[in-house]
Amino acid sequence: MTRPVTLFTGQWADLPLEELAGRCAGWGFDGLELACWGDHFDVAEAVRDSGYAAGRRALLERHGLGCWAIGNHLVGQAVCDPIDERHKSVLSPEIWGDGDPEGVRGRAAEAMMDTARAAAQLGVTVVIGFTGSPTWHMLYSFPPNDFDEIERGYQEFAERWGPIIDVFEAEGVRFALEVHPTEIAYDFVTTRKALDAIGDRPGFGINFDPSHFEHQFLDSATFITEFGGKIFHAHIKDSVKHLDGRSSILGGHLQFGEPGRGWDFVSPGHGDVDFESMIRALNRIGYSGPLSIEWEDSGMDREWGAPDALAFVRRTDFAPSEVAFDAAFGKEA
Amino acid sequence: MTRPVTLFTGQWADLPLEELAGRCAGWGFDGLELACWGDHFDVAEAVRDSGYAAGRRALLERHGLGCWAIGNHLVGQAVCDPIDERHKSVLSPEIWGDGDPEGVRGRAAEAMMDTARAAAQLGVTVVIGFTGSPTWHMLYSFPPNDFDEIERGYQEFAERWGPIIDVFEAEGVRFALEVHPTEIAYDFVTTRKALDAIGDRPGFGINFDPSHFEHQFLDSATFITEFGGKIFHAHIKDSVKHLDGRSSILGGHLQFGEPGRGWDFVSPGHGDVDFESMIRALNRIGYSGPLSIEWEDSGMDREWGAPDALAFVRRTDFAPSEVAFDAAFGKEA
Amino acid sequence: MTRPVTLFTGQWADLPLEELAGRCAGWGFDGLELACWGDHFDVAEAVRDSGYAAGRRALLERHGLGCWAIGNHLVGQAVCDPIDERHKSVLSPEIWGDGDPEGVRGRAAEAMMDTARAAAQLGVTVVIGFTGSPTWHMLYSFPPNDFDEIERGYQEFAERWGPIIDVFEAEGVRFALEVHPTEIAYDFVTTRKALDAIGDRPGFGINFDPSHFEHQFLDSATFITEFGGKIFHAHIKDSVKHLDGRSSILGGHLQFGEPGRGWDFVSPGHGDVDFESMIRALNRIGYSGPLSIEWEDSGMDREWGAPDALAFVRRTDFAPSEVAFDAAFGKEA
Amino acid sequence: MTRPVTLFTGQWADLPLEELAGRCAGWGFDGLELACWGDHFDVAEAVRDSGYAAGRRALLERHGLGCWAIGNHLVGQAVCDPIDERHKSVLSPEIWGDGDPEGVRGRAAEAMMDTARAAAQLGVTVVIGFTGSPTWHMLYSFPPNDFDEIERGYQEFAERWGPIIDVFEAEGVRFALEVHPTEIAYDFVTTRKALDAIGDRPGFGINFDPSHFEHQFLDSATFITEFGGKIFHAHIKDSVKHLDGRSSILGGHLQFGEPGRGWDFVSPGHGDVDFESMIRALNRIGYSGPLSIEWEDSGMDREWGAPDALAFVRRTDFAPSEVAFDAAFGKEA
Amino acid sequence: MTRPVTLFTGQWADLPLEELAGRCAGWGFDGLELACWGDHFDVAEAVRDSGYAAGRRALLERHGLGCWAIGNHLVGQAVCDPIDERHKSVLSPEIWGDGDPEGVRGRAAEAMMDTARAAAQLGVTVVIGFTGSPTWHMLYSFPPNDFDEIERGYQEFAERWGPIIDVFEAEGVRFALEVHPTEIAYDFVTTRKALDAIGDRPGFGINFDPSHFEHQFLDSATFITEFGGKIFHAHIKDSVKHLDGRSSILGGHLQFGEPGRGWDFVSPGHGDVDFESMIRALNRIGYSGPLSIEWEDSGMDREWGAPDALAFVRRTDFAPSEVAFDAAFGKEA
Amino acid sequence: MTRPVTLFTGQWADLPLEELAGRCAGWGFDGLELACWGDHFDVAEAVRDSGYAAGRRALLERHGLGCWAIGNHLVGQAVCDPIDERHKSVLSPEIWGDGDPEGVRGRAAEAMMDTARAAAQLGVTVVIGFTGSPTWHMLYSFPPNDFDEIERGYQEFAERWGPIIDVFEAEGVRFALEVHPTEIAYDFVTTRKALDAIGDRPGFGINFDPSHFEHQFLDSATFITEFGGKIFHAHIKDSVKHLDGRSSILGGHLQFGEPGRGWDFVSPGHGDVDFESMIRALNRIGYSGPLSIEWEDSGMDREWGAPDALAFVRRTDFAPSEVAFDAAFGKEA
Repeated sequence: MTRPVTLFTGQWADLPLEELAGRCAGWGFDGLELACWGDHFDVAEAVRDSGYAAGRRALLERHGLGCWAIGNHLVGQAVCDPIDERHKSVLSPEIWGDGDPEGVRGRAAEAMMDTARAAAQLGVTVVIGFTGSPTWHMLYSFPPNDFDEIERGYQEFAERWGPIIDVFEAEGVRFALEVHPTEIAYDFVTTRKALDAIGDRPGFGINFDPSHFEHQFLDSATFITEFGGKIFHAHIKDSVKHLDGRSSILGGHLQFGEPGRGWDFVSPGHGDVDFESMIRALNRIGYSGPLSIEWEDSGMDREWGAPDALAFVRRTDFAPSEVAFDAAFGKEA
Repeated sequence: MTRPVTLFTGQWADLPLEELAGRCAGWGFDGLELACWGDHFDVAEAVRDSGYAAGRRALLERHGLGCWAIGNHLVGQAVCDPIDERHKSVLSPEIWGDGDPEGVRGRAAEAMMDTARAAAQLGVTVVIGFTGSPTWHMLYSFPPNDFDEIERGYQEFAERWGPIIDVFEAEGVRFALEVHPTEIAYDFVTTRKALDAIGDRPGFGINFDPSHFEHQFLDSATFITEFGGKIFHAHIKDSVKHLDGRSSILGGHLQFGEPGRGWDFVSPGHGDVDFESMIRALNRIGYSGPLSIEWEDSGMDREWGAPDALAFVRRTDFAPSEVAFDAAFGKEA
Repeated sequence: MTRPVTLFTGQWADLPLEELAGRCAGWGFDGLELACWGDHFDVAEAVRDSGYAAGRRALLERHGLGCWAIGNHLVGQAVCDPIDERHKSVLSPEIWGDGDPEGVRGRAAEAMMDTARAAAQLGVTVVIGFTGSPTWHMLYSFPPNDFDEIERGYQEFAERWGPIIDVFEAEGVRFALEVHPTEIAYDFVTTRKALDAIGDRPGFGINFDPSHFEHQFLDSATFITEFGGKIFHAHIKDSVKHLDGRSSILGGHLQFGEPGRGWDFVSPGHGDVDFESMIRALNRIGYSGPLSIEWEDSGMDREWGAPDALAFVRRTDFAPSEVAFDAAFGKEA
Repeated sequence: MTRPVTLFTGQWADLPLEELAGRCAGWGFDGLELACWGDHFDVAEAVRDSGYAAGRRALLERHGLGCWAIGNHLVGQAVCDPIDERHKSVLSPEIWGDGDPEGVRGRAAEAMMDTARAAAQLGVTVVIGFTGSPTWHMLYSFPPNDFDEIERGYQEFAERWGPIIDVFEAEGVRFALEVHPTEIAYDFVTTRKALDAIGDRPGFGINFDPSHFEHQFLDSATFITEFGGKIFHAHIKDSVKHLDGRSSILGGHLQFGEPGRGWDFVSPGHGDVDFESMIRALNRIGYSGPLSIEWEDSGMDREWGAPDALAFVRRTDFAPSEVAFDAAFGKEA
Repeated sequence: MTRPVTLFTGQWADLPLEELAGRCAGWGFDGLELACWGDHFDVAEAVRDSGYAAGRRALLERHGLGCWAIGNHLVGQAVCDPIDERHKSVLSPEIWGDGDPEGVRGRAAEAMMDTARAAAQLGVTVVIGFTGSPTWHMLYSFPPNDFDEIERGYQEFAERWGPIIDVFEAEGVRFALEVHPTEIAYDFVTTRKALDAIGDRPGFGINFDPSHFEHQFLDSATFITEFGGKIFHAHIKDSVKHLDGRSSILGGHLQFGEPGRGWDFVSPGHGDVDFESMIRALNRIGYSGPLSIEWEDSGMDREWGAPDALAFVRRTDFAPSEVAFDAAFGKEA
Repeated sequence: MTRPVTLFTGQWADLPLEELAGRCAGWGFDGLELACWGDHFDVAEAVRDSGYAAGRRALLERHGLGCWAIGNHLVGQAVCDPIDERHKSVLSPEIWGDGDPEGVRGRAAEAMMDTARAAAQLGVTVVIGFTGSPTWHMLYSFPPNDFDEIERGYQEFAERWGPIIDVFEAEGVRFALEVHPTEIAYDFVTTRKALDAIGDRPGFGINFDPSHFEHQFLDSATFITEFGGKIFHAHIKDSVKHLDGRSSILGGHLQFGEPGRGWDFVSPGHGDVDFESMIRALNRIGYSGPLSIEWEDSGMDREWGAPDALAFVRRTDFAPSEVAFDAAFGKEA
């Protein structure tokens, strides 16, 4: 099995796509997972202008790059979240509007429906993204949570996302939630509950990213095995724990990369993620989509890191066996 | 050094104080850390009725119990928090009022000033409590935090609590923040910043409780050593981690005690806290106040647990050496 | 919840029951789990002589001891095993007969039916025992196993034990297989398969003994949680690993207690078993039967060990909570 | 020291030797360890036809490949084992005959003598293989073992293999037992006893394979150091443990590669074996024979794996120092 | 086996023996290991005055205390050491004399011979002590050691101690070197070499103290097993490691008990020593002498610690089994 | 940031510089850290002959090699040490003279001043070296240390090295003490005290070498972070621990490379050092000097090891990020 290796462009949105594509082609990537911000992929434009998506595709093809998925995390986040100033800084003025929370959530939902339409135009079948969460802020139960309210949060998520997924399914595109703290699903329990709430529908699944599991002490391979058929896409991203008794695993309200944090994101292969087991698990469930590097490492030059990460994935990814063990062994002529 | 062992009454607020005092005396406790809820200690009443506090003291003395501190966590929490329904369920109607957040915060601040006054009447010099936090809900930086806003949160805390501490100092009482997730200070970094913000004043310090450090992978003894002089009171409470690759250290939005959580509170001596090192550290800083058992264990009968916890503390607490090492060794006659 | 603590008498079969009962009563045990060998409990005699069982019960009662279960491991082992000389040395001449394997297996099956009848006469509702295994000897797949043969082994077990369990159910007695290497079920996978094979019937369940899980690196609490309703009885027994790079976890074909083994049985509390988690798990599933000490420690005087083990269980076993967590906390008056 | 790297052909017996040799030469192997099954190396034919061995050698040389050892595990296994259907499926009809156990064992012993003769014809001085074991099935002592019978098992091994080794020594060939579960020697203790039983003779030694040690928690380097002079050959093979509390180290009677096993074989460098320490130990004892990759990984395409394994060995194997430490350091001119 | 528990009096030399004996008797000790300093046991006086030893014995007996060994560490240290000011502060003026190193060593050797004579008078058969070391100061080989000089150090030790041991053997007393950093033997390798150098003579053996092994990462039980017959006496003393990445295992030239050290001595049961395994190993070698508590804990009041340590030993020490495992199990009537 | 990779020539002093330079250039090194012994760099000659240094520089340049530092460990060691035969074997006859300790120390101090002068002539600004230590031999406090004497040792160091550093500063050269056992500074505590003693002067700092920290259980990255500005130079050297319960972390007075040691030096990347964290820490403090491989591995051929080590450093060293984390992420167009 030879899986394409792509780069998620979200952390490179300061570069025009033309320039980034040139660099990635030079490093040897097979393709890009386009972020729906910067100038990389403009959902609104794609819906407005029927030639836009084809133009982006052509740009990539000029560099010999493919595209199997796009990522629209920022808008998706606003669909279920309590809205505050942080959302304003990452949303377009059109979606933010007057900032009234329910209005923002509604416009974000519309934009996610458009994302499905734009993806179809671009010819990709997977959109990666976030859902937001009505209950994330109740993570630690103090003042004591009303746990019925937590359960209602899963329902709210299902109600807000159901109509969006209807559009996805109509367009033949699948939404892959990146399981992640701050989202409706971030671990085993919450993923089970979120999937239960929205139902087992073909248009809703998971983007698996191990970097969000490592600092939670969750096992990536076990997760992949449990949710196998629902894993629509995979990120390659790493994280590392620094637990010396003085740094909290909760992060200390410190920015990523600041000394004193109990964990941080690092370039793939430089952290604690067990990619060997992850690849074996992806092989077991028959995943054949891209391995998409989401490159974040506040301590490393990204120009050094991106090709280093690509080389790491090339030597770590391998094809599963197609014959049973010892089928050849143990036959006396 | 013989330190009194007390029970914090907050988890026993369903029992009238008279009944609880009888049981605790029977188990052999030296005293109680009275919670400012249930009928245990009513701050408003103490301020209103000049005989109330003496009555409570007399009740305890009838059972041979002392009192060195009271705890008012619930009201303190409302001083800096964004206010939501969860606060309503733990505040008195007087403090909740119409629920307007700024109004709630103001009335809570007044009530904390009254707590200092009531403590003085009762003859105790330490009030344990929570501060709330303007920034706790921004724990995970997504959507990306404006980190200046985090810094402003420490300032807001200082502004809201400064006037309260003025009253404490005027009454000769000290406020001991229980360093705890959801509070302005919950680890090393945030404690340093909170203390910096409010300044080094005699009326503001720490109630150290190791159960909130264990699941953050923080070392209790190192904390005690660093913040030595600021530690005004100590809780004895334990917690345990269940990290099997499927349970998140973040808790999965599950109630304490539900299977599937990555950590939980347990009766002292039944979890992961290294009390030996904690006692040695308390000895080193010369702490001579109470060791106050805050008993929470969702899997154990509290009637079994409380005397078990007391016995545990009695055999774990020891006095420091008063002579230099080997002072006696190595003298040939 | 107050669970009785009993001693399994199998390792004390050199002592007459009268004498053993006296000692156990002196040490403070609540009762005995009688072994069906030595003079402790004679199944054949109980079936033959309608007064025998009552006599044994009376003997125990004279010492103030109860009896909630009996154990007949040795005969059960012969029901499914390939038969060899080792069985001869632990079976009665009547059951061994001429030693023809199928004949031995058949007579052992009859004797297990009698065990149910005898248990009913004694007034106990649980029989602990082994099943033997048609496939244990194929543990390591070399020469390569035919794995269909393994699956047929579970069927053979079900066929041999089905009729025995019919008698158990008719007598109102339950058979509790001690999950254990050499038996049809010894870990999670094999327990699932064995239960699947015999079906979910009221007369067949599990005697949980953590000492057989520790050296397999299996988690006792997780097992109890998974198989909750099927756990009919529990042993308290400990084991310890000695993994220094020179001692195999497989045991080196060395006798228990010989230096050089990678693991060994030890007196409860002297080994690696996490009894705290085991008790919590038993509490969660609502187990209220005996905690039966099976005392084996080749390096300790059993007269020293038995009361030490009893004291260990008394201080380790505790009742679960009957109220929800924090039900009392967090109520402002 | 530059050691040749070979591939053991046993797991590739479905491919004709001509084809396999071509692939291996292309990958860059130095030679092959020929399996005595498939069409790779036919012992009976070599004894019958005096030109056969030279023909095999010529085939290898056409591809630029050497051969320093051959492997005949399957026949050797039958020399000491209790015989069952599993042996039938891996033995030739000539050796199996009517399947009478003692007859099978005798014919297997003859075939091993022929293996020595065939090896001499091929010009190799080492035969790798298994011995079988009269006592492996008594691994767990229940029903309780008669440990005298275990000791007699080592004697039986010595009696059965002594005459075979006579032929080896007469032919100038050495037999290297692959220390392995199911064999007379599988850990430190059993290797000591097996060597004691057969005596310190030049024709009997060890093929060291670390993959069989890892899941037993045995240290490879310590073993190599202890048995130094007796190590005639070395396999490069890896294994990995998956101990999550639900998977038994004993394997659960599951096929290699099935999810749920506590350990599994994997391609070299993808598992837990500490090859660095193994190479240092081989250097210390002066081992200069081949490093022979026995490639088994049920989760990896073997065409991907074999060259990956070769590259791993090339970068892991290094020559020892020929000068004393710091001989150059510390000389002031 | 019931072993006496004694207290080594070296760390209590500031108290007159009469007073210390009274306290120890009150705490329940079985006896004392008298230090040859303070007023506890005066070797010179015992040699001079034939009634002195009997007087000390009588004093102990008045308190119901026994004595099985005496300890003379300080003088023994001077026999092989390079002599410096540190020795002056722990030696009597008679032994120090003019401080000329060879003279000091000679007088110390004479004093150790007298110690044997005094022990005989007191009726004890074991003297605990140190040997000093000609090579300890060459612990880290920089500037590079001449390793021949290290070997000569063992010879020098043997030459200096041989004549002393002659006197011990003549008196029927055994010298037990406390294996310890700064002595000729402090780990496995050096103990083997020291014993090789002095030869296997009945008068020279080991006082085993696990606190000196823990910070070296040495396994106490393995040591006891290897040197079994040479272990003449055992200390019960504990130590703890504090390895947080900032504290060196070498100790940082800090006094015991100072914060920042990587390890420290603590009261038995409060540190890292695995006493369970130590007791089992002592049982295996048949050691029946005293368990002598050497109490040192710079962070604990010794009056609290001594009875705590005694209680710890009483509940940790147990008798070995006198019957073979499962001798009683597995006998069908 | 692209840092030069150099080889420290001290362990290659048996080779003429011309030959060594040729090999290193062939392997791809950027330069050499010249040892001041062998024929590599002769301090006395450089002071004597004004053209010598330029000649050495020219030799290097012919091979395309740079030089940023020289190392003079052996002479520096003699400045503060108690002097014994070991120093004689590593010092020149001129410095040793009659061997009178104070004389040796004085001549060594003069030679270190000359080293600064010679370095200036060569055009390098850093000299690596040792200081020796007046107190190293008092590492373990028995006989009990007078800790005032330890403190005086730091003063003595400062007094002996102050005048040397005066010359360094006058020459515009910095002395970088290799923090190392046997030196005045070998861990966090001693480094703090040594720097306090000599004062914060520009001419005295640290050569950081992680191989000396690993066996002390010290964290390299934490050290670099604490002493950031004082780190003038960095060695790349590795070490490995072998702690199997029988090998002491103290080394057993065994030569490096002898079996039985608890730790040993190994080629970079073959041991326990966490170079990833070390590089990140060096990036954080802005260190831009050479990464100088000090190659010592008693079990590896140095010709194999040196290029292996260089390749390891090339793939491990990376440049830090020059933009803030997520600066590009999170901008909706």
